[in-house]
Amino acid sequence: MTLRGYIHIYTGNGKGKTTAAFGLAVRALCAGKSVFIGQFVKSMKYNETAIEPLFDHLVIQQFGEGCFIEREPTPADIQAAHEGLEICRQHLVEGKFEMVILDELTIALYYSMLSLEEVLNVLRQRSPHTEVVITGRYAPQELIDIADLVTNMQEVKHYYSLGVLSRNGIDH
Amino acid sequence: MTLRGYIHIYTGNGKGKTTAAFGLAVRALCAGKSVFIGQFVKSMKYNETAIEPLFDHLVIQQFGEGCFIEREPTPADIQAAHEGLEICRQHLVEGKFEMVILDELTIALYYSMLSLEEVLNVLRQRSPHTEVVITGRYAPQELIDIADLVTNMQEVKHYYSLGVLSRNGIDH
Repeated sequence: MTLRGYIHIYTGNGKGKTTAAFGLAVRALCAGKSVFIGQFVKSMKYNETAIEPLFDHLVIQQFGEGCFIEREPTPADIQAAHEGLEICRQHLVEGKFEMVILDELTIALYYSMLSLEEVLNVLRQRSPHTEVVITGRYAPQELIDIADLVTNMQEVKHYYSLGVLSRNGIDH
Repeated sequence: MTLRGYIHIYTGNGKGKTTAAFGLAVRALCAGKSVFIGQFVKSMKYNETAIEPLFDHLVIQQFGEGCFIEREPTPADIQAAHEGLEICRQHLVEGKFEMVILDELTIALYYSMLSLEEVLNVLRQRSPHTEVVITGRYAPQELIDIADLVTNMQEVKHYYSLGVLSRNGIDH
């Protein structure tokens, strides 16, 4: 059994990507590991940070202002994504956190807020023992190629199509 | 917006099903909800119960002795699954827990430890406000038909195929 860290990707259009990453984080924390969660695109409006105070070795940081369904990324969004990537790079290089989660990183790629080359460059610099978890739709093939574990979460049915709004404590 | 509870299914052969369910549980708990997690097939060997002491309103119970890759279910396994289903039924009917997770329920169905009809019957009896989360491979179509949200987690790549063993704090 090797002790190197692996790269996971949870992608696809189905519900469960960020949720699975948070589940991984909690499992790692319960096993005494330390976890950094960097959330691209997302803002503090997302109450996913509610779990942060429960754990001494968990840090969550957000690098955005929300989704781009109704608007294009602004220069401020793009700058926030770059600053976020640099923060993640430092944690990946340093290796203090045993798990680093890059939530919605692929959305930042999809909207060209970050280039594939700069993301791959950051991942190449990581400490070999750090477990890396990437989430978001539209994971590009080049990212899949360098990952060790990739799950594609396909939407078979979603209650949003029934008109159900995102619910606090269930969906966000 | 309706306040009724929905039925989620996380199925497929990819990593992330139980992990997503635990992520949902933690999100719900952080929002002040109470959660019951019933784990079919699994035994206490799974350290997924490590999160239980962190939350006042979380109960995890296990109804099995492990997986059936190398052996057939025994009468004791089958009895444990039935007793587990009855415990889950009581929680679903009572409605005290706002979220009830039936982890690996579909595996118990796949191995004919429970019948589809008895599972559907239990789900029909649930309190209308209870959110139900079902995980496991091989979700049958009849279960998908009554669910509100279904994600199929497809394995694109898995490091197990590289010979990596299941790791404490990451995979279990």
